Amino acid sequence: MEIVCYLRFNMQFSIQNIHNYARTASLTINDKTISTPSFMTIGTYGAVKTMDCSDLKKCNVDIILSNAFHLMLRPGIDLIQKFGGLHQFMKWDGLILTDSGGYQVFSLGKDVKINNEGAEFRSPFNGDKVLMTPEISIDVQTQINTDIMMIFDECIKYPSDISTTEKSMELSLRWAERSKKANYSAKPLFGIVQGGMYPELRERSRQALIDMEFDGYALGGLSVGEPSDVMYEVINENAHKLPTDKPRYVMGIGKPLDIAYAVRAGVDMFDCVIPTRNARNGQLFTSSGIKRIRNAQYSNDIGPIDNECECYACKNFSISYIKHLDRCNEILAARLMTIHNVYFYQNLMMQLRNAIISSSLDDYIAQLERNFREVKND
Amino acid sequence: MEIVCYLRFNMQFSIQNIHNYARTASLTINDKTISTPSFMTIGTYGAVKTMDCSDLKKCNVDIILSNAFHLMLRPGIDLIQKFGGLHQFMKWDGLILTDSGGYQVFSLGKDVKINNEGAEFRSPFNGDKVLMTPEISIDVQTQINTDIMMIFDECIKYPSDISTTEKSMELSLRWAERSKKANYSAKPLFGIVQGGMYPELRERSRQALIDMEFDGYALGGLSVGEPSDVMYEVINENAHKLPTDKPRYVMGIGKPLDIAYAVRAGVDMFDCVIPTRNARNGQLFTSSGIKRIRNAQYSNDIGPIDNECECYACKNFSISYIKHLDRCNEILAARLMTIHNVYFYQNLMMQLRNAIISSSLDDYIAQLERNFREVKND
Repeated sequence: MEIVCYLRFNMQFSIQNIHNYARTASLTINDKTISTPSFMTIGTYGAVKTMDCSDLKKCNVDIILSNAFHLMLRPGIDLIQKFGGLHQFMKWDGLILTDSGGYQVFSLGKDVKINNEGAEFRSPFNGDKVLMTPEISIDVQTQINTDIMMIFDECIKYPSDISTTEKSMELSLRWAERSKKANYSAKPLFGIVQGGMYPELRERSRQALIDMEFDGYALGGLSVGEPSDVMYEVINENAHKLPTDKPRYVMGIGKPLDIAYAVRAGVDMFDCVIPTRNARNGQLFTSSGIKRIRNAQYSNDIGPIDNECECYACKNFSISYIKHLDRCNEILAARLMTIHNVYFYQNLMMQLRNAIISSSLDDYIAQLERNFREVKND
Repeated sequence: MEIVCYLRFNMQFSIQNIHNYARTASLTINDKTISTPSFMTIGTYGAVKTMDCSDLKKCNVDIILSNAFHLMLRPGIDLIQKFGGLHQFMKWDGLILTDSGGYQVFSLGKDVKINNEGAEFRSPFNGDKVLMTPEISIDVQTQINTDIMMIFDECIKYPSDISTTEKSMELSLRWAERSKKANYSAKPLFGIVQGGMYPELRERSRQALIDMEFDGYALGGLSVGEPSDVMYEVINENAHKLPTDKPRYVMGIGKPLDIAYAVRAGVDMFDCVIPTRNARNGQLFTSSGIKRIRNAQYSNDIGPIDNECECYACKNFSISYIKHLDRCNEILAARLMTIHNVYFYQNLMMQLRNAIISSSLDDYIAQLERNFREVKND
């Protein structure tokens, strides 16, 4: 059974299996197909930290997230255009989703001035004044020749009071409209639901964006410091009310369990720095839970990181060797641990898809709960 | 024409071509054969910095240098023994030569007490008292299951007066004898000629070591701060007087031209951190000389590091992409630049061998002189 749910220019989203709110689908853009639920590994600057593109392929990665804001500042869009786009610049033939820069502008904190027009700030690299608007962000993403674009929105800090959140959400809606209008290339463009932790604001944002008819919908403004319960509530309340026939994406989460809960709530796409960043800090995801390589117990362990793992690191090297390299600050340690975690996450997504297909998602989540109750952002 | 020059247990050294003092040969140990003149890439801690063993293979590396002293301190010999040796620990199936630790003890400076027995110092990692003697060094190298061992000797600073140098050289000779006696496994063991910059001391050291009958001979105590001319003089004076039928090795050099001059003087083996360390600092060796990736001129260059190079970095990535990664402190930059330089050095050695075979070594050196007059230790 395959239901072609949404077809538009060079994008097709076809749901294949549904289990309560959860679903598996295939997403095809520019003749490249990925299976959802899907995790996008982070390659902010046109590289996934420590890896090259052949490493990514070996880890079964088929879509990465890059960042319009960062690439605009370094190396600049002119250079990427010389190559015909980011794919050729970084030699990546999988899909690319670019974030618009909204979250990164938000990260600059007090150094950014936001008004109706857009966000103005000084480049942290050379002090130049930079203006980011919905139109500029879409233009940058178009020139990068990304596969999926995100609207330019405002992210606010947690906690924020309801009137600040409402004003920000309304600004983001105006910017969403301008982002859509600016999309001259007709590339797939996703809207981003804001509204903080206020259900009524989330609903207004969601409805307004649905009326604007985007090609996919994200929940934004999460994983900004709110308690897990609050985050789950926003996801559970909103995900299944987003259009069934289009991809649903929760930005910036996460931990294996958070992903699983969101999948159960009907989410299709994810991105997060956890697998890559935690790897560099020696935190490894395995079939039996977290292993911290800096713990003494791995000093003499001649087995791999995870006996059940088929990644390049586990098939070739022992955990004690990688621990030794980590202790000696050898870069190879960071690369092997990243390869392992990225592979783990791709495998996690495959198991989630299989659990949906076999209607055993709750059992699979129960197993994850035994292993990953305690995962923190390292 | 192949002349089997030296055959002993599991080692065979066969000279194939001779051009004045320079020669090409094949060196077989434990059924693994390399061609000389050969450059050994440095893998001090059981990894070549930024690379894994499949990277090394792609760069045509067939022998690496590792370090008994460092591995004894971290991770310790017990762990490496659990794997059956360093090859299995790091998953390297090429040859390994281990340095004995003499040079590293010397690098500790005032923190080491040297007497007739050996060298005593505190571990820089945990403060433990450590004793290194010829017997211990040979034992460590044996347990690492290296392919070629070096005797344990003393290195002294440059400049040192003649009486200090003489005493040290004589101590090294006594240690050489003890190293040889301690070699219970009958693995190939190389002697190291000392004697500083004093011809008469070098000659005494050389003759005494030749009388002891080692399986190969190194010139040690070079590249310790002396002017290039002084270094060349020691090499030119000593290399061709070492036994013709055994491998000759100059330790710790270096620059492409220094290697070429030493090859002309009759040297077969080299090791140096220059290709790997300079890569991490953005200094690239190319067919047209040095390129410093941090120079502005490469910001918009869509070509590879070197059009004539067949390495993984040059076949896949542009110099402007690698420069961008370097600027963003992406580890991939260091790895790609290291891959390039290591490949360059292996290619350099092949070209030197070809120049010897075709009796055109002087022409080839003249070409190198045009490109590499100015290489510094970055």
